[in-house]
Amino acid sequence: MNLVLFSPAEVEDPGRVCVSDARAAHLRQVLHVAPGDDVRVGIIDGAAGIGTVIHVSDQSVELRCTFDDAVPERPRVDVLLALPRPKVMRRLWAQLAALGVGQVILTNAEKVERDYFDSHVLQEAGYRPLLIEGLQQARDTRVPLVSIHKRFKVLVEDDLDALCPTDYRIVAHPGADASIAATLRGIEWTERVVVAIGPEGGWNDFELDLLTAHGFDGVTLGPRTLATTTAAIAIVTLVHEAIRRGT
Amino acid sequence: MNLVLFSPAEVEDPGRVCVSDARAAHLRQVLHVAPGDDVRVGIIDGAAGIGTVIHVSDQSVELRCTFDDAVPERPRVDVLLALPRPKVMRRLWAQLAALGVGQVILTNAEKVERDYFDSHVLQEAGYRPLLIEGLQQARDTRVPLVSIHKRFKVLVEDDLDALCPTDYRIVAHPGADASIAATLRGIEWTERVVVAIGPEGGWNDFELDLLTAHGFDGVTLGPRTLATTTAAIAIVTLVHEAIRRGT
Repeated sequence: MNLVLFSPAEVEDPGRVCVSDARAAHLRQVLHVAPGDDVRVGIIDGAAGIGTVIHVSDQSVELRCTFDDAVPERPRVDVLLALPRPKVMRRLWAQLAALGVGQVILTNAEKVERDYFDSHVLQEAGYRPLLIEGLQQARDTRVPLVSIHKRFKVLVEDDLDALCPTDYRIVAHPGADASIAATLRGIEWTERVVVAIGPEGGWNDFELDLLTAHGFDGVTLGPRTLATTTAAIAIVTLVHEAIRRGT
Repeated sequence: MNLVLFSPAEVEDPGRVCVSDARAAHLRQVLHVAPGDDVRVGIIDGAAGIGTVIHVSDQSVELRCTFDDAVPERPRVDVLLALPRPKVMRRLWAQLAALGVGQVILTNAEKVERDYFDSHVLQEAGYRPLLIEGLQQARDTRVPLVSIHKRFKVLVEDDLDALCPTDYRIVAHPGADASIAATLRGIEWTERVVVAIGPEGGWNDFELDLLTAHGFDGVTLGPRTLATTTAAIAIVTLVHEAIRRGT
């Protein structure tokens, strides 16, 4: 935990916060804080800042916090992901939040098993703590927006323009030639990217055609075929890298 | 499984292979092969090729294979990794093999728990199947070389030059300014890269100084601090990208 996140309601005037849950245990037992120590803090979807430890007890840690004026920007990468199996998705929430994504759009596809949608990790109570964990790891405060779509065609045809009125749309698939860097060359500071990542076994032809018809350019990760988790991390990393270089 | 790997001893003249283990089950139940179908195959640390299914029974699958003349090159990225906890390392083996690394050099560090070295995932019988799994996912045949070092100082001072007489040495840490792309700019076709990835909590000052004194240039992944698995995947991805651009 490299930054401790609070909900807005936990922060009392003037910046006083008292935590008594897993965050308190982490502050005491891992960071070994003592009164006077400073730790990085942040408000969920708000500003980051510094918290000075005021009091440590067996159950709780009290801090007095000052927060930056500016709220961090939402990361400029959105991920449209064919829902992987629950065990994989459970790990991916924190990893995506840590890497920095603005939005996680989960979708059905031919090669997605229907019962994946019944998993606890798709309920907000299941995934939100994992997103927060990833943000605390990466020192961010902005929780990715999440939406879950059981009908791929309706998502792409009807919902996607409103969800992400995005300048760049790319889809990773083995048949493509262009690299992510080449495709995103010249991207501007204000522009966002949405990247579609298929299921194990890939998008089928219909799905790939529909994405292409809706503005997704094919990109390749090279000759190696990667599993969903590895591919997702690699792709988001390369998009961030392209954005950094482009601006 | 995007390529089925055989040990050299399994391949009889002229290219006949009969498998009856998990590979046979995968060929039958996931790929649903029938006589006449072609599948991608390879020999461990040898050539890749195509196998034509000759016979399928309840227990086994028989193939007749033809192999390429050339053996794939060993990936040009080596990873020097402070040993993560066994659960993380168990996942990382296949991911590193899939991303493509020539060598995995595992080391102790101040923030590595001593008992991590007793794990089954550090025994060849434990990790080799995971490396093979990653290769079969990524369609590679070259098993990464693995060495395990309980003494960081001895590794860096005495063993590293022989293990990797490498042209580029980089270490990812939060204090660095240079990007991986900038540091590897101009890398030549024949040159290799070794990248040092620290434990959760980072290298200590002694460790970082020793790496620096032995030619490791600091690189940054940007402002976000990533957990070991995510960082390792991101770093290897960016090194491969830099190598592709550089040549």
